[in-house]
Amino acid sequence: MYSQYQLVIQTPKRAIINITDEIEKCVKKSNVNIGLCHVFIHHTSASLILCENADPLVQRDLEVFMQRLIPDGDPICHHVDEGPDDMPSHIRTVLTTSFLDIPITDKKLALGTWQGIYLWEHRLRSYQRKLTVTIRGE
Amino acid sequence: MYSQYQLVIQTPKRAIINITDEIEKCVKKSNVNIGLCHVFIHHTSASLILCENADPLVQRDLEVFMQRLIPDGDPICHHVDEGPDDMPSHIRTVLTTSFLDIPITDKKLALGTWQGIYLWEHRLRSYQRKLTVTIRGE
Amino acid sequence: MYSQYQLVIQTPKRAIINITDEIEKCVKKSNVNIGLCHVFIHHTSASLILCENADPLVQRDLEVFMQRLIPDGDPICHHVDEGPDDMPSHIRTVLTTSFLDIPITDKKLALGTWQGIYLWEHRLRSYQRKLTVTIRGE
Repeated sequence: MYSQYQLVIQTPKRAIINITDEIEKCVKKSNVNIGLCHVFIHHTSASLILCENADPLVQRDLEVFMQRLIPDGDPICHHVDEGPDDMPSHIRTVLTTSFLDIPITDKKLALGTWQGIYLWEHRLRSYQRKLTVTIRGE
Repeated sequence: MYSQYQLVIQTPKRAIINITDEIEKCVKKSNVNIGLCHVFIHHTSASLILCENADPLVQRDLEVFMQRLIPDGDPICHHVDEGPDDMPSHIRTVLTTSFLDIPITDKKLALGTWQGIYLWEHRLRSYQRKLTVTIRGE
Repeated sequence: MYSQYQLVIQTPKRAIINITDEIEKCVKKSNVNIGLCHVFIHHTSASLILCENADPLVQRDLEVFMQRLIPDGDPICHHVDEGPDDMPSHIRTVLTTSFLDIPITDKKLALGTWQGIYLWEHRLRSYQRKLTVTIRGE
């Protein structure tokens, strides 16, 4: 049994956004008892992560870490058509991931206590980000 | 056909631990001939990697690389509730992965000759780490 | 329904190579309407990424970024049996990924407009790289 759902997330600006509830709703709709929930983002300058969900400082620190690793306007970047945050956003996406796949147990996402699903908007301004959720199991 | 197995791995301290045999045992139990084996770790300060399995220096070098990239006690980290290795562990987890998905061919993990499945404990002390293995196929 | 395909990609030397067409051909053969396409590389010194597919400068910048992050011959690396690019290739592989899993919708890879599937050869010379594509769905 394969179910697919299309989601659109409006990002406010560069930010790490908790989307766990949106994904859990898809799992509920699918009625799968045991299986897997695949989340895919159709972009190359925003990505997905599983991340600590209790202390907002974690997201703050991740963002600061990435800015140190590949700062906006880094002179090594030649792909700058859309501004100083363009290429760093592609690099951040490659270093994190464009898809997550999470077990479903007893009709729920089998996340650990401290795990949340986050969309990381790497561009400086707001975007509409499209996701496809593919749930399969039995 | 979906089979799920729960594993608990006791980590000794910060270390990169070969868990290929534990995962292969699950594949054998599942009796799947052709399919995929998904391994998920339910934590945000330990992660999974596929890594060279012959020379222990590879794991040593990976660890040294990560310590240079995001040292324990790095002053950019504000999330320090559980000590200087707290936030670096979250960052290391995000830069590697919380899940692996490996093809099954002829009832075995279709790993390359030099590929092993490793659990990377990022915290300095020992932990009990929970994993869920989800196997599907036919 | 599970279909598996074996691919061999000859890499020219260190390079980021677009393999989207090769994967799309497997999807077509599988005749899956809705499902997922899993791509796995059986090596620890070449990896897979989803990446911007329009401007070759993106691949150039990614390569330069990685060379800054972990240069060939970096003195922290002790695993140097196969040369100065040996251990950096393992690190690059761990920081990117050995597998991708992409939704299939209406019998096609549901990639975003700017997303392409790339094989990243991290070694300096040419290699034959083996991949397994596992397609399932209905």
